[in-house]
Amino acid sequence: MSLPTTLFAGILPRNSVRRFISTHSRPTLPSIEYPLSHPIYTIWAANTSLGKTLVSAGLSTSFLSSPHRKFLYLKPVQTGFPEDSDSRFVYNKYSEFFSQNRPEFSVFASNHVLKASVSASEAVSVGGFEIERDKDMSCGNGVVNLGLYEESKLQGSEMKGFSKLVCKTMYGWKEALSPHLVAERENARVEDAELLGMLKGCLGSESESEKGEILCVIETAGGVASPGPSGSLQCDLYRPFRFPAILVGDGRLGGISGTISAYESLTLRGYDVVAVIFEDHGLVNEGPLSSYLRRRVPVLVLPPIPKEMSNNLMEWFQEALSTFHSLEEIMQSNFLERTSRLRNMPRKAHDIFWWPFTQHKLVPEENVTVIDSRCGENFAVHKVNNNVDLITQQFDACASWWTQGPDATLQIELARDMGYATARYGHVMFPENVYEPALECAELLLEGVGKGWASRVYFSDNGSTAIEIALKMALRKFLFDHKIVSDDLVAKNAESRVDLKVLALRGSYHGDTLGAMEAQAPSPYTGFYQQPWYKGRGHFLDPPTVAMRDGVWKLSLPQEIETLKPSLEDLTFSLRENIFKESRDTSNLADIYHSYIWKTLQLIIDSSGSTRTGALIIEPGKTLTYAQVSFWSFLPLHLFLLAHDSCFT
Amino acid sequence: MSLPTTLFAGILPRNSVRRFISTHSRPTLPSIEYPLSHPIYTIWAANTSLGKTLVSAGLSTSFLSSPHRKFLYLKPVQTGFPEDSDSRFVYNKYSEFFSQNRPEFSVFASNHVLKASVSASEAVSVGGFEIERDKDMSCGNGVVNLGLYEESKLQGSEMKGFSKLVCKTMYGWKEALSPHLVAERENARVEDAELLGMLKGCLGSESESEKGEILCVIETAGGVASPGPSGSLQCDLYRPFRFPAILVGDGRLGGISGTISAYESLTLRGYDVVAVIFEDHGLVNEGPLSSYLRRRVPVLVLPPIPKEMSNNLMEWFQEALSTFHSLEEIMQSNFLERTSRLRNMPRKAHDIFWWPFTQHKLVPEENVTVIDSRCGENFAVHKVNNNVDLITQQFDACASWWTQGPDATLQIELARDMGYATARYGHVMFPENVYEPALECAELLLEGVGKGWASRVYFSDNGSTAIEIALKMALRKFLFDHKIVSDDLVAKNAESRVDLKVLALRGSYHGDTLGAMEAQAPSPYTGFYQQPWYKGRGHFLDPPTVAMRDGVWKLSLPQEIETLKPSLEDLTFSLRENIFKESRDTSNLADIYHSYIWKTLQLIIDSSGSTRTGALIIEPGKTLTYAQVSFWSFLPLHLFLLAHDSCFT
Repeated sequence: MSLPTTLFAGILPRNSVRRFISTHSRPTLPSIEYPLSHPIYTIWAANTSLGKTLVSAGLSTSFLSSPHRKFLYLKPVQTGFPEDSDSRFVYNKYSEFFSQNRPEFSVFASNHVLKASVSASEAVSVGGFEIERDKDMSCGNGVVNLGLYEESKLQGSEMKGFSKLVCKTMYGWKEALSPHLVAERENARVEDAELLGMLKGCLGSESESEKGEILCVIETAGGVASPGPSGSLQCDLYRPFRFPAILVGDGRLGGISGTISAYESLTLRGYDVVAVIFEDHGLVNEGPLSSYLRRRVPVLVLPPIPKEMSNNLMEWFQEALSTFHSLEEIMQSNFLERTSRLRNMPRKAHDIFWWPFTQHKLVPEENVTVIDSRCGENFAVHKVNNNVDLITQQFDACASWWTQGPDATLQIELARDMGYATARYGHVMFPENVYEPALECAELLLEGVGKGWASRVYFSDNGSTAIEIALKMALRKFLFDHKIVSDDLVAKNAESRVDLKVLALRGSYHGDTLGAMEAQAPSPYTGFYQQPWYKGRGHFLDPPTVAMRDGVWKLSLPQEIETLKPSLEDLTFSLRENIFKESRDTSNLADIYHSYIWKTLQLIIDSSGSTRTGALIIEPGKTLTYAQVSFWSFLPLHLFLLAHDSCFT
Repeated sequence: MSLPTTLFAGILPRNSVRRFISTHSRPTLPSIEYPLSHPIYTIWAANTSLGKTLVSAGLSTSFLSSPHRKFLYLKPVQTGFPEDSDSRFVYNKYSEFFSQNRPEFSVFASNHVLKASVSASEAVSVGGFEIERDKDMSCGNGVVNLGLYEESKLQGSEMKGFSKLVCKTMYGWKEALSPHLVAERENARVEDAELLGMLKGCLGSESESEKGEILCVIETAGGVASPGPSGSLQCDLYRPFRFPAILVGDGRLGGISGTISAYESLTLRGYDVVAVIFEDHGLVNEGPLSSYLRRRVPVLVLPPIPKEMSNNLMEWFQEALSTFHSLEEIMQSNFLERTSRLRNMPRKAHDIFWWPFTQHKLVPEENVTVIDSRCGENFAVHKVNNNVDLITQQFDACASWWTQGPDATLQIELARDMGYATARYGHVMFPENVYEPALECAELLLEGVGKGWASRVYFSDNGSTAIEIALKMALRKFLFDHKIVSDDLVAKNAESRVDLKVLALRGSYHGDTLGAMEAQAPSPYTGFYQQPWYKGRGHFLDPPTVAMRDGVWKLSLPQEIETLKPSLEDLTFSLRENIFKESRDTSNLADIYHSYIWKTLQLIIDSSGSTRTGALIIEPGKTLTYAQVSFWSFLPLHLFLLAHDSCFT
């Protein structure tokens, strides 16, 4: 008898449908949570020195042109510090701009430096800063708490209210190199979790108890994929927050390419880029860029930045003000659209979706989970608490019902691989063709989960359909092996045809297409209302089950075996792993179960009657062992084994 | 009675299974064909001025270190010409390198300029060039045939054979700006089709009747996504050939980001990047780059390029030679692996695939199509002609059996969107959740194909499963509407249960899951060997059919109508479109067909017996009109309409 030969690749359902979402924080990264009460944007650039900080400063001049507002500027990672300080630049430029324009309100402006490497802290000139030195400034890893700040009250021409400018450098390093290099050289590495934790803290504390409007920008360092202090690429580092992005492009020769590529790197990480802005170099780069973006993302052009910084750029800021107003308007309207969309999503979903496996009346609108994105094992979800919108985190404990999502790193790699495969092949039909991804996937399956028993792969598009295909194949092979020839059958009428059955486990679940349900034992799910054509075309064996009771794992056996009174120590286990040990395949209990099956099968497997058992269905929960496969090999059946998604580990 | 309310989104099968692949050339782009007898690589860069041409020249020094070889260097697009000429640079540098090293063989070296803008051609100093001026040099569009070349025989220290260096500039423009700009300014635009046609010509002519080894590199202009002369981004322009890529990265500050982004732009267009190489700037950029590439793509570092070009860079080329040898080795081994893999693919596919809808014995190995990639409506396929491997083009006339692939531009956009969605969401379960792509897709469907009749969307994962879901829903709704209560039925035995049938068209096809096949009239495909559980749970109506005979479109009617002798002019059409005109919904023939259906249904639709018609299935081949939907509304059924993929136009 030939051993099983086919591996079905498909995402197959688990035997039990489980789902629960619970709030749970990841051990490493802080729980992601931020308010949606005001816009928060990340400023990215296609390369270094393209003017991210000018854009940040420009946005402050635009936003703080009215009272009752707060502009929050965060620079998480600053190298070349203290000589270079982008937060100080924004603070200074806004202050100068204010003095020149003297609006009818006042502004409280401040600039803070929270932490720095020891080397950078030692180089701090106490110049304009007020120092708040703790007794013990060290916070480990060569980083010290600085708590430096400078502040000023900018007096307006009249007294029509106040606004605020808050600039913060989170971490400073001394050398003017890439953060991953200086963190290493200055022996002051900052882990992603720490950095994100502080960012979250800054965003939270600065938005509390504020009455007026707030605009917040977070300025990255270098290019979109420049490494952060831990070595993680910044586009990966900040991904859990997935703040909408402003991309500062490159207006120089070659800049179209760099800008498009940077845009694609952000897109390939699930960011929404709401605007592209760059300095004019007279090359009309906005033409090809707008055309590439199909005019769905606005492209703004800033006036050329004077080479000699005479006039402290004040003329330039004045000239660029209308462009910054446009940018701010885009940011504001995108924010409002996003928030309103998120708020309306549960109602819309209720109105136009039909969810599978769901009685809609049992799902009130407030129970609908609005998933804004996913990162690692967490969903970023939208909630409204006390009428305040926020993005918060929920642990994905559902394994998406049947399939576990990838971890954060793999998710990005998967996105790249999917993009690559789509770009290379588009859509290609399969029969009589061969192409790399299909072949490579088949090879991997046969060398992996299929090793030793599978020799071919049939691709299906979901678990239920895979079962249908397997049933068709198995039944046809049975008819062929047993020389039940088609012509004989066609001659007879339908009633006298051979009735082909499937050997399966009671309580098992193989999917919800009408055919797959026939291989499932009768249950509430196979009732007339659920499947009016259901006959139950199977012989269903009783499996042993396992459950934890009073802190002990206990096996329950089918009634027929129970009467054989197996010894209690064979039935109880302190560790769950012990139940699934391969050595139990030859245990006393295995013999008992073997002979129970054997006896039951004697009654079922009939080689002459009009009812015949034509297929066996097993859906392994874990990787199959060869022993498990060969256990069934005494059956006069051609075996078709279904590879469960959890086999691919 | 309520009108139909649900739209099923899924890729649904066409009524007839059609497939044919024929050779066919696109009207615009030239048919893609190139030999796989030797490696052809494209040299890309993360930005301008990163040393692509140094890498090309370096490869010539490495490859032409033995006799019986030919190095072909192609520069399709050269701006700043004739002052800048990368092909001349390669020609000169190799010649100098040869003179310094004097190997034991000779080299015939030549440099050619094929075409140029009128402005560039006027600026050519006839210096080293031999001029072959045609009487009429113009080839339209402000581009002239130049046919300039310079050549020399480099004499080796001994006479152990010959090698060849052939450098070609395909098109030159005068200004040193981006190709799309200079093409416009010099009024000398070159369309993609023309450029690719010439590239194909150069590759073909230079590989003919050569005995020894050949290595060919094609050097792009600027960065990976810099526009070409037509405005198409170069990464899109060269995509039909999909030559494997060498990426010249950026070793400077910010260069990690630019290199990664450029790599991702190439990947997002289906290119295989086989190596990354860049100039050392002392920043150890290779560390993060290798880590990002997971060491799957080698990263090579070139020695710093001297600022002052004394010594004509000869010391630098000498120092870099071992790195160029490594690069060449990577290129050679990748080429051999690729070719060998392509050659073995039909056999492997035969061994380990099970294709759907295929009798494997009828597909000899030589009939298996090896699809290397797809671009627009064409496959790039691998063939072996007279024992020579080549990549050639086949038109995808199969519409991938059931779904038409996207065009070249949309294919890339689709890849980006898929990458984005995957990166943003990974894998997320659906019930009780809502997220943007699902909601947006549902909205688009309801505002598009579902407008006026559909109010909800149920997502399925393939056409067959969509049919299964629709059947379940329709039958359940019927039972509910007709107060056939579940409990009554459970009480009775299975035999006395109501037998629910589906109203369908004879000859229609709804998929191959066991349940979907029940809604299909008996045919060879529903035989006992194909579907041993098949009962045929339908009432099947005879539809009119249409065919062209003797140059005229003729309708054939079901026999019962035929006897009513409809007039001949109602049955013949000169244009196919006329058959599907909406006005025919109220024609004489429509009335006849309407009453035929009505009569047939009188016999079928029985409101009391144990056989009941619980569902109607229609799979429209084109977009549904509201009239077509309402035509069926007299039936006491809840309608579930299935949106065909071709509806989404």
